Parts: sequence; C-alpha cells; structure tokens
Amino acid sequence: MHNCIIEDDVHIGQNCYIDSNCIIRQGTKLSDNSFVGANTILGEHQMDFIKDHKSHHELIIGSNAVIRSGSIIYTGTRIGNYFQSGHQVTIREKASIGNHCSIGTLSDIQGYCNIGNYVNMHSNVHIGQESVIDDYVWIFPYVVLTNDPTPPSEELQGVHVHSFAIIAAHSVILPDVDIASDSLVAAGANVTKNVEEYAVVGGNPAKKLGDVRNIKNHVTGEAVYPWRFHFKRRMPWEDSDFVTWINGLSEN
Amino acid sequence: MHNCIIEDDVHIGQNCYIDSNCIIRQGTKLSDNSFVGANTILGEHQMDFIKDHKSHHELIIGSNAVIRSGSIIYTGTRIGNYFQSGHQVTIREKASIGNHCSIGTLSDIQGYCNIGNYVNMHSNVHIGQESVIDDYVWIFPYVVLTNDPTPPSEELQGVHVHSFAIIAAHSVILPDVDIASDSLVAAGANVTKNVEEYAVVGGNPAKKLGDVRNIKNHVTGEAVYPWRFHFKRRMPWEDSDFVTWINGLSEN
Amino acid sequence: MHNCIIEDDVHIGQNCYIDSNCIIRQGTKLSDNSFVGANTILGEHQMDFIKDHKSHHELIIGSNAVIRSGSIIYTGTRIGNYFQSGHQVTIREKASIGNHCSIGTLSDIQGYCNIGNYVNMHSNVHIGQESVIDDYVWIFPYVVLTNDPTPPSEELQGVHVHSFAIIAAHSVILPDVDIASDSLVAAGANVTKNVEEYAVVGGNPAKKLGDVRNIKNHVTGEAVYPWRFHFKRRMPWEDSDFVTWINGLSEN
Repeated sequence: MHNCIIEDDVHIGQNCYIDSNCIIRQGTKLSDNSFVGANTILGEHQMDFIKDHKSHHELIIGSNAVIRSGSIIYTGTRIGNYFQSGHQVTIREKASIGNHCSIGTLSDIQGYCNIGNYVNMHSNVHIGQESVIDDYVWIFPYVVLTNDPTPPSEELQGVHVHSFAIIAAHSVILPDVDIASDSLVAAGANVTKNVEEYAVVGGNPAKKLGDVRNIKNHVTGEAVYPWRFHFKRRMPWEDSDFVTWINGLSEN
Repeated sequence: MHNCIIEDDVHIGQNCYIDSNCIIRQGTKLSDNSFVGANTILGEHQMDFIKDHKSHHELIIGSNAVIRSGSIIYTGTRIGNYFQSGHQVTIREKASIGNHCSIGTLSDIQGYCNIGNYVNMHSNVHIGQESVIDDYVWIFPYVVLTNDPTPPSEELQGVHVHSFAIIAAHSVILPDVDIASDSLVAAGANVTKNVEEYAVVGGNPAKKLGDVRNIKNHVTGEAVYPWRFHFKRRMPWEDSDFVTWINGLSEN
Repeated sequence: MHNCIIEDDVHIGQNCYIDSNCIIRQGTKLSDNSFVGANTILGEHQMDFIKDHKSHHELIIGSNAVIRSGSIIYTGTRIGNYFQSGHQVTIREKASIGNHCSIGTLSDIQGYCNIGNYVNMHSNVHIGQESVIDDYVWIFPYVVLTNDPTPPSEELQGVHVHSFAIIAAHSVILPDVDIASDSLVAAGANVTKNVEEYAVVGGNPAKKLGDVRNIKNHVTGEAVYPWRFHFKRRMPWEDSDFVTWINGLSEN
C-alpha cells in the first residue's frame, strides 16, 4: 500500500497484504498468505543497532499470520504459522512462539521466553523474560508474569505455565511459580506459590478455592473443565471434539 | 497535514483538523469541528477485510471530536458528539458510544458494547464485549470489565454499570455483575457480586465497606457523594448545579 | 530517515539518529547523541493547540536519549540526559524528569509530576498527576500511582515515592500516600496508608509483612536489601560499589 518502507534483505511470501505506513526492516522473513496491518514495524532494531546503527538480526514469521496495526516485532525472534496479533503489540528479541498463537492488543512480550502452540493471550498481557508457556494455554487481560524474586536484581526466574492452564484477568504471578496443567487462576489472583493440577486458586495471596472439575455452567449445570472437552474454536479439534481428535492422532 | 491517506467514500465535516500520517478508511464519516491527531487510523478494517481485502463498513463519529494521536477506531462503530480520546486508544467494531464521552490513553474498547452519554474513562481501561455502561459513569485506570464466566467459553455475559457509578483504579469486575447507580468500587477491588445503590465496596473479594453518603472531604469535612451534587466539570450542569439543571429539564 | 516531519524551530543536536516516520514539532530541543525510534512524536500538542491550531511550547530532552518507536512526548516537559524509553510510551505536559531515567513500554506519565534521577520504571506504569518520585526509585509493570481521594474531584493529591523505594508489579498506590526510602511494596499490593522506611508491605489492603533487611537471596542466603549495596547496573556506582562511590562523593 502507501508509504511502506521495505528495507533490503527482506523476504515476503506470496499472497501477503502489507498495509500502509509499515516498516519492514532488514532480516525479516514473512511467509505466505500473511496480513500486516498499517503502522506496523517488523524487524525492530535491538540495542546493538541503537549503539552502532548497523547491526541486524533475523525475524522469522510463519505463514497465514495476521498482524494488526501498530504492532512492533523485534528481530531475533521466531514465530510459527497462523499467528494472530491485536493492535499495538510489542514482541521483543529472543521470543520463540509456536504455531496458532494469538496475542491480544497492547500485549507486551518481553522476549527471552518460550511460548508453545495454540496459546491464546487476550489484550494487555505482560510476559516477563524467562517465562515458559506450554501448549493450549489461555491468558486473559492485564495478567502479568513476573520474573525477579528480589527486585531489582540480575537473577530472573520465569513463571512456567503448563498445558491447558487458564489465567483469568488481572492476575499477577510471582517469579518461579509453576502453574500446573488444567489449573485455573481466578481473576484478580496474586499467585505466590505453585498451583496444582486441576486446582482453582484465587485471592491475595492466592489460595486453593476448589477443583476445576466441580465448576458447572451456571445455565446448563454441565461441567465446563477441563475446557478442552467443551471448547473448540480455533483448536485442532475444531471439526470434531478433543477425544476424537486425540484418538485419531494416536491411531495414526 | 502531511502524508495522510484518505480513502474514497470518506466524509469529513467542516472545520476539521487532520494531523499528519493519518489513515482514514472508506466508510468513515467524521462531523464538523473535529480534531484528529497524528498517526490515527479511523475506519480500521474488520476481520472480513483481512480475509477478502475488500469488505467495508461504516464508522460514524459526531461533531466536535478530539481524537488524540495513535488511536485506532474500527468501522462498524458509532460515536456521538463531543467525543474525546487519549492516545493509542483502540475501539473495535460494534461499539455504540453516546455524546460527551471521554476515553483515556491506551484504553481498549473491545466492541459489541453499549456506552451511554457523559461517560468518562481514564487511561488504560479495558471494556469487554457485551458490557453496558449507562450515563454519567466514571471508570479509572487499569479497570477491567470481564465477560466470560468460565473462560474459555463462547457465552459472554457483560458487566452492567449503572448511571453515576464510579469504578476506581485497578479494579476488576467479574462477568454479569451489576454495579448499581451511585455506588463506588474502591481502588484495587475484585468485584464478584452485584453492588447495591450507594454502596462502597472494596477488597479481594470485594465486600461492602460502607455507604457513599457517609464519605467526607478530608479537608472540608463536607459530603462528596453522590458526586453529581459536588462535581460539574464537563457535565451538562457545568454552568449551574445539578439540582438547578435537573429542575430546569423537568420544567421544560 | 524516511518520511520524517521536522517542523520549524526544532533543535536537534549532533550525532542524533532519527528513524522513519517521526514527527518532531515546533519547540522541541533534543541534545547530542540521541536515538529516536520510528513513528515517534516529539513535542506533541497540548490542549491549547487543539483549540487554536497555533499555540506552541517547548520540549527539552537532554543528551544521549534513547526514545523507542511509537512514543509520544508532549511539549511543556523537560527530560534530563541519558533518558531511555520503551515503545508506545506517553509523557504529557509539565512532567519534569531527571537524568538517567528509564520509562518502559506502554507507560503513561500523566504530566504535572516530578521524577528524580536514576528512576527506573518498567513496562506499563501509570504515573498520575501530582506524583513526586525521588531519585533511585524502581517501579515495576502495571503499577498505578493514583491521585484523587474522592473521585471524581478537582483536588488531586499525588503519591510521594522516596529514594531507593521499590514498588513491585501490579500494585496500586492510593492518593497522598508516602512510600518511604528503602521500603518495598510487594507485587499486587493495594497501598492505602503510608509505608515506613525499610518496611515490606503487601496484600489488599496492604499490611506490613516485614523488614527488607531480613530478605535473603533464596540461593546464596545473603541479604539483598537495601538494594543499593547489591545492585549496580546503570547506577553511578556501576564501576565500583555504592559505599566506595558515596565516600568518593563526600571526599570531593
């Protein structure tokens, strides 16, 4: 479109749509069928460029990405296929992000972190350095994953969020905390200790409030967790259900 | 000004000021006497455009708007007169916003919501889909109105904030909660249940702490709530007082 | 670089790097050796310009600044040397910011505030008007310094954070609260009362949890506070230690 700045040594795949005012810097590789919203910066400079005005690194983004307007993604990062971002998202260097991830408006991925596949972050999520997020994790608005046990220090210890865990809105997770699979951190929780599998935790400081398997839909009265048996939008079992899908995988 | 991209089928009223680097997309109607800050996107594309590169909808913004730099407002939304935004605000599709509203820097209006007249949101407010906000409501920084009772799910149930209510900074309101008229949610509250008229609630989980009518100004010792009897800036009773104004209305 | 808009009456020092799409407005003075990231607005208009389309003021930024892409800094503000910002930072008018300060991505400095030297704010910090922050303060993500004791009102009373204090992530500080030197506000705290020197406070509402001098590094078992005796990156004692540095100052 208009006013885009595409530097040398940029690879843009087939059938991509690059909207106006984008800056795509040296070293960026964007795969096929991707959409890049207006005012986006792909391949943002790291600190070495700020100092020497010439260092460059590589940003790799897979196919079928949708990067909404105003986002900034650094070099030194690698993102899988079917990525979606909201607006004004920042993703710094040394972030590794899997396939089918979605990162909402105003989220701030601080880099030096590992994010799996099918991870969904809603708006305004802050992922500190050294965080590890496994597959199929949900993180809701204004959640902060911290990393410094005795701030300010140089010894960062990231949070580890395991598969199928859910962190509801406005929660803060303290450094080095382990959020086990299938657990649910309730909205507004201040999580200072590890969270067990299937546990529901909430409060400040967070305490165990119950077991996810006892939570019912307040209309139908049916169980709603583990969520993979009840929710399928944008999941690999979207066209059938989790059990059929996982059985199909093991049969193949 | 410089480098603006004004697409076809855009209506800009008289006496508008459009600053540099703005993108105003097809279907946008901006009324008279409005100011649009630099780097703003009016009429941002919805998901259908991302897929087909051609769908367009309508964005209607009333007269006397002040939209500060870096904001992004989608098509499919309608905003009344005398609107003010801060910087880097995002307003998605299917938001209905009345007259004389103000939405602060970095706020994120997720769309599919109804916002009345004279609603003031400070910086960094998150309004989930299906929220309903009546007239004369105040919402302060880092407040989140959630909507999913059992995340992740497809059954969104918005918060309803009634007229003259106040939600102080850093509070999170759980899905389907009703915040009654003239109530005050204290800073940092985690509101899990309905809030009664005139109630002050706070804490995690929030409990009733008192009645707004008992709160005094710590200097003068005078009552300060309901606030409409004590505060008038940018309100329709700015030139007199609330009682005179409301009596004038009923006499006419 | 490309597409920059540099208005008249702008001073840019020697050896500065101005990246693409920047807008530098009338009255901006940027000193030597500074880096300005893409899409940045320096000298953003105040409300008087929005009304009359001609009022201008002065923005002064010292030498060796690094202002990352997408930031917006108003006129009427003064920033010292060695300033660093993250992305999409907003700094409004009448902010006074000392030397060697760092303000992280998405932070929102509301103006009418005083920030000392060697102050470090991480991402997404909200500094309300009338805040006073002394030297060597650390503020972590999603912290809000409020200022209105009875919102909405016209009587703002800012928070005062004293030297060497630390406010950890996701805390909210109520109006007029005094955070004493060397204290530590724990993550997720809701601080309603003054915090004493060396105190650790946390919870909602925050209570005293202990004394910083009793906190040990969980690996080495050594004391870690007051932090100035244990942390030196980007501090004036970076090349020696705090005691040597302060003794050197008093000898000179």
